[in-house]
Amino acid sequence: MRPQDIIAKKRDGEELTCGELRIFVDGVCDGSWADYQISALAMAMVIRGLSEPEQDALTDAMLHSGEVLDFSEIDRPKGDKHSTGGVGDKCSLIIAPVAAACGVAVPMISGRGLGHTGGTLDKLESIPGYNVNLTTQEFHRIIADCGFAMSGQTAEIAPADKKLYALRDATATVPCIPLIVASIMSKKLAEGLDALILDVKTGSGAFMPRYEDSVELARALVRTGSNFGVRTEAAITDMSQPLGQFVGNSHEVYECIEILCGNVAPAARPTLELSLELSARLLMLAGVADDLDAARNAAVRSLEDGSAFERFKQNVEMQGGDPRVCDDPNTLIGKDLEEIAITADVAGYVHSIDTFAVGNAIVAIGGGRTKAEDPVDHGVGYQSIAAVGDQIKLGDALGLLYCRGRERASAVVGSLQNAYSIEAEPASLPDLIKTIIS
Amino acid sequence: MRPQDIIAKKRDGEELTCGELRIFVDGVCDGSWADYQISALAMAMVIRGLSEPEQDALTDAMLHSGEVLDFSEIDRPKGDKHSTGGVGDKCSLIIAPVAAACGVAVPMISGRGLGHTGGTLDKLESIPGYNVNLTTQEFHRIIADCGFAMSGQTAEIAPADKKLYALRDATATVPCIPLIVASIMSKKLAEGLDALILDVKTGSGAFMPRYEDSVELARALVRTGSNFGVRTEAAITDMSQPLGQFVGNSHEVYECIEILCGNVAPAARPTLELSLELSARLLMLAGVADDLDAARNAAVRSLEDGSAFERFKQNVEMQGGDPRVCDDPNTLIGKDLEEIAITADVAGYVHSIDTFAVGNAIVAIGGGRTKAEDPVDHGVGYQSIAAVGDQIKLGDALGLLYCRGRERASAVVGSLQNAYSIEAEPASLPDLIKTIIS
Repeated sequence: MRPQDIIAKKRDGEELTCGELRIFVDGVCDGSWADYQISALAMAMVIRGLSEPEQDALTDAMLHSGEVLDFSEIDRPKGDKHSTGGVGDKCSLIIAPVAAACGVAVPMISGRGLGHTGGTLDKLESIPGYNVNLTTQEFHRIIADCGFAMSGQTAEIAPADKKLYALRDATATVPCIPLIVASIMSKKLAEGLDALILDVKTGSGAFMPRYEDSVELARALVRTGSNFGVRTEAAITDMSQPLGQFVGNSHEVYECIEILCGNVAPAARPTLELSLELSARLLMLAGVADDLDAARNAAVRSLEDGSAFERFKQNVEMQGGDPRVCDDPNTLIGKDLEEIAITADVAGYVHSIDTFAVGNAIVAIGGGRTKAEDPVDHGVGYQSIAAVGDQIKLGDALGLLYCRGRERASAVVGSLQNAYSIEAEPASLPDLIKTIIS
Repeated sequence: MRPQDIIAKKRDGEELTCGELRIFVDGVCDGSWADYQISALAMAMVIRGLSEPEQDALTDAMLHSGEVLDFSEIDRPKGDKHSTGGVGDKCSLIIAPVAAACGVAVPMISGRGLGHTGGTLDKLESIPGYNVNLTTQEFHRIIADCGFAMSGQTAEIAPADKKLYALRDATATVPCIPLIVASIMSKKLAEGLDALILDVKTGSGAFMPRYEDSVELARALVRTGSNFGVRTEAAITDMSQPLGQFVGNSHEVYECIEILCGNVAPAARPTLELSLELSARLLMLAGVADDLDAARNAAVRSLEDGSAFERFKQNVEMQGGDPRVCDDPNTLIGKDLEEIAITADVAGYVHSIDTFAVGNAIVAIGGGRTKAEDPVDHGVGYQSIAAVGDQIKLGDALGLLYCRGRERASAVVGSLQNAYSIEAEPASLPDLIKTIIS
């Protein structure tokens, strides 16, 4: 069957068979489909949609386009957490060691930041020497030893997704739930998991800002996970303001190490709260706790007794990072940064924060990228001072920008100030965790 | 504006501005849009459609992506004919010299055959030496001298269309009336015409077989021509059986020369009839005849007095072809061809002929191409013996296949036989000219 014939079927709104979707995915991998044919079918899929059977078949074909990891040598349950991405969303760095300390093996394959959202790999690379390009062998060994490893997607894991995602990004074919599901789940299912907790963000800083879209995506992800035999839940969580105290790679790692050490700044409380909730649900799904209370207690205990911190430190060491950052996280914060306060130009209550704008401001000062090949400045960042609901006086600091050179920063100061909507009436606080889809 | 942003607008069903469509067309020409971005937008256009203003803006941008010819040095009206393509459709070779003989200058830019339909350039190239790659200078000089010239699309004429069409062919984004209109009209408007007669085919051998689609396409073409100041009409004509006596490049040239010489075989009558109708309408549109009767009389006269034939012969000579084929068209027909009769396996009346299958049979024996870069065998062909409505006895010849080697031919004999639907009741004859859109 020629690519054109398969493309034409979807163009005309017909359902593609498993075989046709496999031909497509094989063609993406072996080059027998040209990029322009792949993108034409992607566009037809975005507009015409995919049925549930098509979505599962596409996920399956993408999953089996590469290696599916097998951790049967590790007799603990295998679990992972995945977030759809946000601004200041650094929970993976807490959840992985917590889950590991509680008896779950976590083979976490992560991505880099793109656009306004950050990526776990970039955050980790702000630790000097930390290697996110593990071989499969290293990945296995580190998980066996310290309970979790964090690595980038190798060429062997869902190679179809890598190629397809790059094309989708350049052809406006990203916002399509079945394609998003196939992309996320083909990678996660390749980890050979027993349990998966998904954090689907909603609000101005989320990849899909509308609540209904987040719910639809969460449902599709959970359904797909279950169809493939992985115990899966999704939390719809708030991204209507940056999560926790800091945005920016090294600042976020700093915040996580402080939390792992038990030093939780008031502004960092949401980071801890969300990490505990997602960790507890992961422990439950993985079967190492009998109920949510017990799971939550276990997670809290791993923080209090330092066992999660020890796992983290061990991981840093095993992945080649400088373990001294764990003992003195202040060394992560550059000494040569300018600090610019973002101040309120009216008094009142913070009603909303345009989190997309905050994320883009960090990209603009070098802390993120707009193209996959762009370099990232790990040092720059942003400290949230005012949160939604806070009462503000004229001139109060809303946040603090950590940047290099006032000139480049001055371009974003206005947009950061404008991101805060301050009104006279008190504002209600958004729920951090909106709902659980299981 | 990034390609992604323009693609996303059309993906979401929004209307693109003239400026956005110009950015797209410029991007196609200068390479700043990648092929995969072009095909993604093409797919979004196919599914979401284009409004009339978008269609005109796209046509305008594609037209002005290249050179627009200026024949102001020729004081005759400029006119052309374009067909959407069919099987055995060779009328251009008669209409051009007839119109030239009647005082219309015809700057005809034609294409090659692709898929089941033939192309004027391939037919012309069956004349030994005939050059279809004229420079603009040669094109002007030949039109000035003999009244018409027939050439391929140069790199200067609507370059956006050339690139876009090749991509559309490979990505199942061909069947879309606005894109078809922009493709056809950008090339025809680049000829600097005063008048244009369009032959929109309908039926099993047409590019768009359904009558309603043909009418919709004809309306869009005529409206676009008029919007750009060219007097334009379209005839919807029958392609439910091969046109005239022969299919196949050199055989079709043979049929045309015979008609130009006044030797009209009964099976070739539809070729003459359609050529006269389209010629007469072109003469009317070009303003060289006062009414359709006068125009038709002028066209008939140009055939009877030999002036159209003289123009044709002069053209062959000026375009480097061997003029002896005009005096002895039998030399066009290869001596080394096998002849295989396609015979009726039942008696009755011919109700329909799957003309798409007939066209594909010619491609299969080498007379056409499935990819633009394929070579073409000009010698092979097919002679229609039975037409729709004819009464047939068991074993009667329905047609005659001219091929090289029985082996290759045997594969298509069955499909040619199956192309004829023969039933017991008498069949009604299809109208050659269904309707005129003006």
